[in-house]
Amino acid sequence: MRATILNCTLKPSPEPSNTDALAELVAAGLRELGADVRTIRLVDHDIKPGVSSDMGDGDEWPGIREKILNSEILIMASPTWVGHPSSIAQRAIERMDAMLSETGDDGTPVAYNRVAGVVVTGNEDGAHHVISEINGALGDIGFTIPGQAWVYWNMGPGPGPSYSDTDHGHQYVHQVAGLMAKNLYAVAAALRDRPIPAEIPRGED
Amino acid sequence: MRATILNCTLKPSPEPSNTDALAELVAAGLRELGADVRTIRLVDHDIKPGVSSDMGDGDEWPGIREKILNSEILIMASPTWVGHPSSIAQRAIERMDAMLSETGDDGTPVAYNRVAGVVVTGNEDGAHHVISEINGALGDIGFTIPGQAWVYWNMGPGPGPSYSDTDHGHQYVHQVAGLMAKNLYAVAAALRDRPIPAEIPRGED
Amino acid sequence: MRATILNCTLKPSPEPSNTDALAELVAAGLRELGADVRTIRLVDHDIKPGVSSDMGDGDEWPGIREKILNSEILIMASPTWVGHPSSIAQRAIERMDAMLSETGDDGTPVAYNRVAGVVVTGNEDGAHHVISEINGALGDIGFTIPGQAWVYWNMGPGPGPSYSDTDHGHQYVHQVAGLMAKNLYAVAAALRDRPIPAEIPRGED
Amino acid sequence: MRATILNCTLKPSPEPSNTDALAELVAAGLRELGADVRTIRLVDHDIKPGVSSDMGDGDEWPGIREKILNSEILIMASPTWVGHPSSIAQRAIERMDAMLSETGDDGTPVAYNRVAGVVVTGNEDGAHHVISEINGALGDIGFTIPGQAWVYWNMGPGPGPSYSDTDHGHQYVHQVAGLMAKNLYAVAAALRDRPIPAEIPRGED
Repeated sequence: MRATILNCTLKPSPEPSNTDALAELVAAGLRELGADVRTIRLVDHDIKPGVSSDMGDGDEWPGIREKILNSEILIMASPTWVGHPSSIAQRAIERMDAMLSETGDDGTPVAYNRVAGVVVTGNEDGAHHVISEINGALGDIGFTIPGQAWVYWNMGPGPGPSYSDTDHGHQYVHQVAGLMAKNLYAVAAALRDRPIPAEIPRGED
Repeated sequence: MRATILNCTLKPSPEPSNTDALAELVAAGLRELGADVRTIRLVDHDIKPGVSSDMGDGDEWPGIREKILNSEILIMASPTWVGHPSSIAQRAIERMDAMLSETGDDGTPVAYNRVAGVVVTGNEDGAHHVISEINGALGDIGFTIPGQAWVYWNMGPGPGPSYSDTDHGHQYVHQVAGLMAKNLYAVAAALRDRPIPAEIPRGED
Repeated sequence: MRATILNCTLKPSPEPSNTDALAELVAAGLRELGADVRTIRLVDHDIKPGVSSDMGDGDEWPGIREKILNSEILIMASPTWVGHPSSIAQRAIERMDAMLSETGDDGTPVAYNRVAGVVVTGNEDGAHHVISEINGALGDIGFTIPGQAWVYWNMGPGPGPSYSDTDHGHQYVHQVAGLMAKNLYAVAAALRDRPIPAEIPRGED
Repeated sequence: MRATILNCTLKPSPEPSNTDALAELVAAGLRELGADVRTIRLVDHDIKPGVSSDMGDGDEWPGIREKILNSEILIMASPTWVGHPSSIAQRAIERMDAMLSETGDDGTPVAYNRVAGVVVTGNEDGAHHVISEINGALGDIGFTIPGQAWVYWNMGPGPGPSYSDTDHGHQYVHQVAGLMAKNLYAVAAALRDRPIPAEIPRGED
């Protein structure tokens, strides 16, 4: 099983990223289950605005798209800015919009039979909404969202510390990140064994 | 395979419900695939405010909850009011919140290995958000959300006709409702054959 | 200046309400500024489902609606359930939907020249989204939303204590609640002195 | 009175922008009332990712920020992508996040006593949510959101034409855009005459 994590932090490498630190817990859980996991920090790449799979002229999205489509598991990892997914996360989602009209060999949309989950950090409230926003978009495109396939960290009320600044809640997120890895892996495996068919035979049960 | 549709219209029976009319397209698609489908119009029942599975004293939620847990497929069908899921839909979600701490025989949360989808009508814009809101909540509770497992109808901009008032877009929703039924059924079947385990053996691929 | 607080907790009186406790900070701030403030716990009243101002037959909304329209300031105070405003808050918003087509003596919608703010509690993340959802609806109906006219309390990550269980963040919310009261009062006063006109004379500056 | 419109289309100049076409209706309404209006197409500028007012090194945000702060009225005009504000809109909001800690001469946050509104286009459902998302962020930062200060256009259900492709709903949006202009102008004028004070004298009414 292969997993791609898109780290949607606003901070370019080599700045430390809280989002990366939290996503690494999920990556570790997936690796323990036998998955290959790679992480791409999107802000380090030139991803052009637009809604096609290739916007030409230095656009680095095509290579990232290929990695997504070589994986059974997609994880969007985003900071919370003003209560929303980051502009980098939204940029990636806009580019994935093109997948709506792209189909694989069996005629189903390319995102079918892939699963997705969300990792969210923040120095303030907003994570559940970020999860709903990203999953809403990915479900639209065709990804399946396993139950409880997310992990988040923040500490309210009001602006507070970042994930890496404190130990508060770390035990909780370790546990939830492990659960997320398990659920992503299990549903990806179920869909590998019994994929959504192009057509379902009628009258079956 | 069994499916329960919660119709979250604000209109009590026997008033005609646009939401019901649209949900019936999905029900028909599921029945063609061999599923048993029942629909509950929640507003006809006394569902007490609260976040426990039984609020006592005339509360009709326990019987509805049992039907949900006897089904592999849950469909929330909601009108759009001021851009949101209806208060009836939110009431049902609040009551399902109790499922977060309820587990089945194998120790996994009761919503695991069940799938969910959303049907939305409206006389104005808002459907995608209603879908994200409901799916965000159901995913939190443990339901798996198959890709493209929703159908909606509205006609903007501004206040417009209701679904049953016009033929506009009916061909589109017939097609999308069929796709929704297929995807719900296929992912439910995959999870029946290979459920999310209580524990995953390490090192597997 | 008069203010009405709609407490949208799921808990009937006389159960203590965290939402009420937080809303009282704002009420105190408004009273210090000279405002009359009353709080209505909506769950204690029979508010029928629907989108008309009077659903007949025991419906207690008409009396509540009158209090809202006798006030220059409206405050919706809601707990966070599964990341959303409570079903009680959504019920109130649905009933206010009727105001979209109701106008006052000068021909402007009844909500014009009134201001609104939001109070949110929770034992988990979600407050910013609850604020956006409620303000989105109220702005649609015609209320003006002053900048920084909200206060929230929760403590993440994951399920945590309720507002009244701890002192964590209380100093922060006292300060923010005072700011909210000030901003609501100031914008309400500005609109009282210089209301949105039915028609604006052209070419003015 | 001065107004700045941030056009958050993904399409660089000179490509025609549906969002621009709809925003121009509001601009025309504001000009009729005597306002100076300028529009900035953000995608034509290099706006660096980050949450400071100046990210250095070719960052064009500082000049745009200055225009926003020279205006009493801010309009965010965004297309709808996968149900969300565009990545360009979110980028602008992230950069305005820095305003949370910036104050003017009187000690109030720089966004105070400014008003904001939203214009949304799309070839599919999502506008009300885009409005709530953007207004939620701007209210957080300190802008006041007048009632009914938005206009949107889309035509559901499912993917449909763009605003400039059809006459459907154009009469509606002309009327709503005029109302939006009036409400933005009126509340901006009220706050110019009677601004939110740094401190409110106690006991006033």
